[in-house]
Amino acid sequence: MTAPAHSLSPVLEQADRTLDAALERLFAFLRIPSISTQPEHADDCRRAAQWLRDELDGLGFDVTLHETPGHPILVAHDRTPPAGPHVLFYGHYDVQPVDPLELWESGPFEPKLVTGENGAKCIVARGASDDKGQVMTFIEAIRAIRATGGQMPVRISLLIEGEEECGGPSLLPFMETHRTELRADVGLICDTAMLPGVPAITTTLRGMLGEEVHLRCASRDLHSGIYGNAARNPAEVLCQILSSIRDEATGRVTLPGFYAGVQESAPELRARWREIAPDDATFLGEVGLSRPAGEKGYTAIEQTWCRPSFEINGISSGYTGAGFKTVLPGEAVAKVSFRLVAGQDPVHIRQAFCSHVRNMVPDDCTVTFTPCGGSVASALPDDAFGLQPALDALGAEWNTPAVTIGCGGSIPVAADMQRVLGMPALLVGFALDDDRAHSPNEKYDLAAFHKGMRSWIRILHAMAATDA
Amino acid sequence: MTAPAHSLSPVLEQADRTLDAALERLFAFLRIPSISTQPEHADDCRRAAQWLRDELDGLGFDVTLHETPGHPILVAHDRTPPAGPHVLFYGHYDVQPVDPLELWESGPFEPKLVTGENGAKCIVARGASDDKGQVMTFIEAIRAIRATGGQMPVRISLLIEGEEECGGPSLLPFMETHRTELRADVGLICDTAMLPGVPAITTTLRGMLGEEVHLRCASRDLHSGIYGNAARNPAEVLCQILSSIRDEATGRVTLPGFYAGVQESAPELRARWREIAPDDATFLGEVGLSRPAGEKGYTAIEQTWCRPSFEINGISSGYTGAGFKTVLPGEAVAKVSFRLVAGQDPVHIRQAFCSHVRNMVPDDCTVTFTPCGGSVASALPDDAFGLQPALDALGAEWNTPAVTIGCGGSIPVAADMQRVLGMPALLVGFALDDDRAHSPNEKYDLAAFHKGMRSWIRILHAMAATDA
Repeated sequence: MTAPAHSLSPVLEQADRTLDAALERLFAFLRIPSISTQPEHADDCRRAAQWLRDELDGLGFDVTLHETPGHPILVAHDRTPPAGPHVLFYGHYDVQPVDPLELWESGPFEPKLVTGENGAKCIVARGASDDKGQVMTFIEAIRAIRATGGQMPVRISLLIEGEEECGGPSLLPFMETHRTELRADVGLICDTAMLPGVPAITTTLRGMLGEEVHLRCASRDLHSGIYGNAARNPAEVLCQILSSIRDEATGRVTLPGFYAGVQESAPELRARWREIAPDDATFLGEVGLSRPAGEKGYTAIEQTWCRPSFEINGISSGYTGAGFKTVLPGEAVAKVSFRLVAGQDPVHIRQAFCSHVRNMVPDDCTVTFTPCGGSVASALPDDAFGLQPALDALGAEWNTPAVTIGCGGSIPVAADMQRVLGMPALLVGFALDDDRAHSPNEKYDLAAFHKGMRSWIRILHAMAATDA
Repeated sequence: MTAPAHSLSPVLEQADRTLDAALERLFAFLRIPSISTQPEHADDCRRAAQWLRDELDGLGFDVTLHETPGHPILVAHDRTPPAGPHVLFYGHYDVQPVDPLELWESGPFEPKLVTGENGAKCIVARGASDDKGQVMTFIEAIRAIRATGGQMPVRISLLIEGEEECGGPSLLPFMETHRTELRADVGLICDTAMLPGVPAITTTLRGMLGEEVHLRCASRDLHSGIYGNAARNPAEVLCQILSSIRDEATGRVTLPGFYAGVQESAPELRARWREIAPDDATFLGEVGLSRPAGEKGYTAIEQTWCRPSFEINGISSGYTGAGFKTVLPGEAVAKVSFRLVAGQDPVHIRQAFCSHVRNMVPDDCTVTFTPCGGSVASALPDDAFGLQPALDALGAEWNTPAVTIGCGGSIPVAADMQRVLGMPALLVGFALDDDRAHSPNEKYDLAAFHKGMRSWIRILHAMAATDA
């Protein structure tokens, strides 16, 4: 079939006309503090899922909230689907914790429309860009189509989860048990960024391996005067261990076999990225830095898009409150993670890390590990279903050719869709690297929300013209 | 003059007879949560000082609470002093914070008399041994003397402060401005430990230098996926810095000139210590460790009594709450301290530390330092006023020769009494290394409290026979 071209402009006009109402709905969604990693917010996560269920039900979708050991998973199917291609939208309704709260200029869950330094209006709230704002771009696109033409140009299903920010274990087994119901021609994942003014489809994603390391030395906290020098200090041992994982001079991870299977990106791709992506000064300058900290010989963008890394996400030991306490701590804890690229095996790397740590722990101390999620990296082939039509549609909306880029983040569902559901996943997102995802004052440009909505309308129409 | 020997036994009997009442008074003192480093407990510190004022006023002392920028300093003088030697008692009414609170078996400020694993009764509460329990040994000794003979055997003054646990700045300037009022023949400081069953006078104390290091890299917390590898991680930099301060192989501090001026202890003294002090297995075994962590070639006791050291007292960066957060932190903080021995210059060592840290901080990051107190080490000459009589009196009370030992802790007032008041300071204490000072379930043996009281009665009588 071919897309009814005449039906495109009225839908886009409908999206323009109803932007304010769409913004109101997004604000209502953002007011729900659905922090998935904090048990006390479990009910808020459920409320967020129920809010989406009600929205989609009103848009003519059959919606089911599936219970999981963690937070509910929402699946929705169009009650009146057309023939032709079948797409599965993916997003997540959960958000990151908000600490440090004191750095927020307004309440994380009191969304505001403010004008940024660059004069652009943006939506400020936790989840504005990651991922509630992006989820609402495709839901509002659906609404605009329903409000004008009635029937969707392609068959649409939706999968929206609530454990993306906490490395939750529920989604993968759910996809495996609902394989048949969820399989479509292509997955449309809206949880990534574009380049300023340049629309992008992310075709490579880093995987991630998280681990919590708990080191115990003395059986209790000690007086640093009475025991200092004689009793092993777990904070010092942990510092020695963590500072040994990366070589200062080369910026490379030192674990044996860490780079085994890692491919260099094609020179022409790296050249293209140098044209379109921000240079080191721009990319790092925005966060107050100037020198890439990773592997020598790679730009900051390359270090995040196509090279693996090690990060300390949190470390704590001893007394860190007001004033000073002459304590020699009995324990120390760190949360660390490795970002992985295609070709790396998370299982092998976890083993290499744990044995490296064990080798550095003194005989009379004990270390325990708590795995905090793991996912392989993913890469999309150039001829993946819907990739070219989507690039064309994005180019038309943003009046500049869309590009394929990498992403340093980890979105396990992309790899899982390919592996478990046997379909490609297109990562189409409208966030920007300066959106402060996971940070205080997270924002989402109003233009990203508006043109994101319009982009999906165009993409869905373009998909209708694609042979499944 | 000579001490009225006949007056000793009735006073000791009075102390024995009234032990229960003395214990009640100590419990009332322990119930006041006078945590000096936490601003919200400022009023409690004042209450503790007022409680002591009322006790001493009732014992016939003129008491003044002197206001300071921090917590009040108590000074008391006997209203009816005898001729002869003049002693100045020192102690502190403030206590350490109580975290981790969940490890306390009973409320830190709900003192209890419990029977320990060894069958000995002990007082459990924050401050039981450091230092409220020890302060009450000399106050109850005074009470017993007053209750029997009336007049003190020597002229007694008391100096009790409330900033010992927070490295407060008030005491030194106070001693300087009240030099004349405070000067005596000898200071009697009750804030140290003895050996199990063996009374001891501490003649060497380590000094301390505390510093808070605040490292800022990115201007905000970042998404570890989007920025990981490219953006400098302050936790990683701080780990590199802190793990470079001590050489793993030798256990020695690496700062240039750190050991300049440090004298080796006399071989015969080290030999004596090996006889009377716990061996490594005993000293470390009590806290669940087995191998000394400090300088090779020294026992655990020597490492704490006569060798300088570096300790990480606290470190914090990124997300350390429940679950996992893929954050790349913007800042990292550590509280560290150096324990110093005689001959080391705190000013030089602070400079060496700060410049070492600055040299390791990347150009695009910033480090700030907050000094957290500093004190030189102190050492008492063998012929110090009152040392021998005090050793004899202790030997008589405990039925075994008293010994001179070192202490790894820092009690700046000992050095200050010598330097500012021009008088020796005897460190006579009855705590034990296993009293869990600064830790959950801090305790003080009932025997230490009782025989401590009796020891002071004997020491005061012995002092009366000493020529000033």
